[in-house]
Amino acid sequence: MRKPTAEGVAAALESLKAIPLPPTPLLPVEIDGVRCHVKAENLQPIGAFKIRGAWWRLNNLEGDHAVAVSSGNHAQGVAFAAKRLGLKATIVMPHDAPEVKLANTRALGAEVVLYQRPGEDRDEVAARIIAESGGVLVHAFGDPWVMEGQGTAGLEATEQLGREPTRVITCCGGGGLAVGLSLACPNAAIHLVEPEGWDMVGQALAAGQLVHVAADPPKTICDALQPNVTKQLNLDMLEGRAEPGVTVTDEEVRQAQRWAFANLRLVLEPGGAAALAAALAGKVPLDEGTVIMLTGGNADPARFAETIAA
Amino acid sequence: MRKPTAEGVAAALESLKAIPLPPTPLLPVEIDGVRCHVKAENLQPIGAFKIRGAWWRLNNLEGDHAVAVSSGNHAQGVAFAAKRLGLKATIVMPHDAPEVKLANTRALGAEVVLYQRPGEDRDEVAARIIAESGGVLVHAFGDPWVMEGQGTAGLEATEQLGREPTRVITCCGGGGLAVGLSLACPNAAIHLVEPEGWDMVGQALAAGQLVHVAADPPKTICDALQPNVTKQLNLDMLEGRAEPGVTVTDEEVRQAQRWAFANLRLVLEPGGAAALAAALAGKVPLDEGTVIMLTGGNADPARFAETIAA
Repeated sequence: MRKPTAEGVAAALESLKAIPLPPTPLLPVEIDGVRCHVKAENLQPIGAFKIRGAWWRLNNLEGDHAVAVSSGNHAQGVAFAAKRLGLKATIVMPHDAPEVKLANTRALGAEVVLYQRPGEDRDEVAARIIAESGGVLVHAFGDPWVMEGQGTAGLEATEQLGREPTRVITCCGGGGLAVGLSLACPNAAIHLVEPEGWDMVGQALAAGQLVHVAADPPKTICDALQPNVTKQLNLDMLEGRAEPGVTVTDEEVRQAQRWAFANLRLVLEPGGAAALAAALAGKVPLDEGTVIMLTGGNADPARFAETIAA
Repeated sequence: MRKPTAEGVAAALESLKAIPLPPTPLLPVEIDGVRCHVKAENLQPIGAFKIRGAWWRLNNLEGDHAVAVSSGNHAQGVAFAAKRLGLKATIVMPHDAPEVKLANTRALGAEVVLYQRPGEDRDEVAARIIAESGGVLVHAFGDPWVMEGQGTAGLEATEQLGREPTRVITCCGGGGLAVGLSLACPNAAIHLVEPEGWDMVGQALAAGQLVHVAADPPKTICDALQPNVTKQLNLDMLEGRAEPGVTVTDEEVRQAQRWAFANLRLVLEPGGAAALAAALAGKVPLDEGTVIMLTGGNADPARFAETIAA
C-alpha cells in the first residue's frame, strides 16, 4: 500500500480549493495563562474535519461508488464529497449513532446501512456491500489519501499562524488526522488525545504493535473516537513521531464542552472536545505555538443541553 | 455633536489592528435555497461585536475613566478596552442582567454598579457617577466613535466577500451598529431587526421622530436589544438610508438559536440571533450578496439548554 506523503497533503489542499472550502478559523485562546490557538474544524460545512480526507480520497477514487464505515462524521464527509462529485455513496453506520449524524448523512444523499453495535462486524457488512456492488472502500482513518486530506488542517494552521506550530494537540480516533498533521507539520510535537479505555493508538504506540479494544470496554461519550483497533499503516507512520498518548475522562470532556460554550461560543461534540479537554486538564504541555484541534461539533441537542446546564 | 463618517470607520479598523483583533469569520450558509453569508461576531474575544466600538471610543477618550450603561455586551467591550489601555471603567448594569455577562465584565476588571429594572433610571445612575468621579460617558449606541467602531464589521465583511454586500441584515438595539454598517457599506440595503414591542428604531424611522417604549412593554428574551428609545443622531443617520424595520418573536429567535446550533455549530444569545431569525422566517429578502450579522453569543447556559432541548 502506498504511504501518505507531505507532497500529498499539499496536493490535497489545492484540491480542497475547488469546492471551495475556506480555511476554518484559527482562534486565540488563553489556558492557564498561556496564549495559544484552537483550530475550529467544527465550523466546517459538515461540522467536522472529515470533509478534508473524504474530498481528497473521492477525487482519486477508482470507480463511481464509495463505501464507508463511520459513526457519523466520516459518513457526512464522504456523502458531501460524493454529492459534489456526482458519485454514489453507501455508508455503514451503527444503529445507535447520534440521530443528528444519521439525518445529516441521509440529507446529503448517501444510502445509510445500519448495523448492530455490539454484535455485527461493521467491516464485514461493508465487505459484503463491496462484493455485491463493486464499490470502493473509503476507510475512515487507514487510507493514505484520507490521511493526506486530513493533514490539510495542519497546513492551514501554519499559514494562519505565520509559522509552523510548535505542537499540535489533536483528538484521536483511529489516527488518520494524526498522521496527516505529522506530515503537514513535520517539526511539531504531535499529541494524541483519546477517551479512557479507547486509546487504541496510544496503546499501540506504547506496545509497538496493534492493540485491540478490551472485550468489555468502558462506555465513553466520545462516539466519534471508538475504533476497535488502529491500522498498521497508521502505527508505522506515527511510531517515533507522535508523543506518548494521553487519555481523558467523560467528565473532562464535558468540562471542555462547557468551556468552549462559555469562552468560545462554539458547539463541540464530545469527541471534538477531547484535545481541548486534555489541555484544560493540564495533561499536555502548552506554549505560544500550540494549536489545539477542535475536530467536530455535531452534538446531540438533548445531551449537549444536559452537559451545559450541569 | 460630531457626526460619524465613513473615514472614521476606516480609521477605527486601523486602530483595531493594534489589539490585534483578527477579522471574525464570514461563513457561508444556505437559507431557502439562497447561498449567502453570516458574519460571526459571536466569535469575538468578548463574544459580541461591541468590542469594536468600545475600542475606538476609548482610544479617543478625553480622560482616563470610562463610564458606561449596558445590559452586558457593551459592558464587556468597554471593560476589555479599558483593561488593554490602562483606563478605569465603571459600568452601570441592570440587576437582572444575565449572570454570565456580569461575571465576564467583572473578570475584565471593570467596576460594576447595579440598578433596579424597572424602577431606577440607569442614565441617572450613570450621570451621578460621572458628576462624582469626572468620568466620561461612553454611550452604547448614541456615540459617534462607537458607531464608527461598530461599522468596522461591515468593512471586514466587504473584504472577506470580495465585494460590498448587496444587503446587510442586522440585529438592532439602539441602532449604533446599524449606523456604522450603513457608513461602511454605503450601497448596501440595511435591514434592522428588533424584538416585537422593542422596535424603537423601526418605529422612530416610521414616525420620523423618536419613539419611547410602551409603559408596559411585552417581555422579550433579547436582553441585549431593549433600549427605551434611540437617539436623535441615530435617527438622523438612518432616515432615508435604512429599510423599514422588521420585528421578530421570541419563538422565531429561539428557532434561529436552534438552527445555528445544528447547522453552524455556533452559540448565539437571543439578541445575537434576531437577524438570522428574520432571515429564516422569510421576513427579509435574501440574495447571494447578503450578509447576516450574528452579533453576540453570551448565552445563559440554563436558558440555552432549554432552547435547544425543546
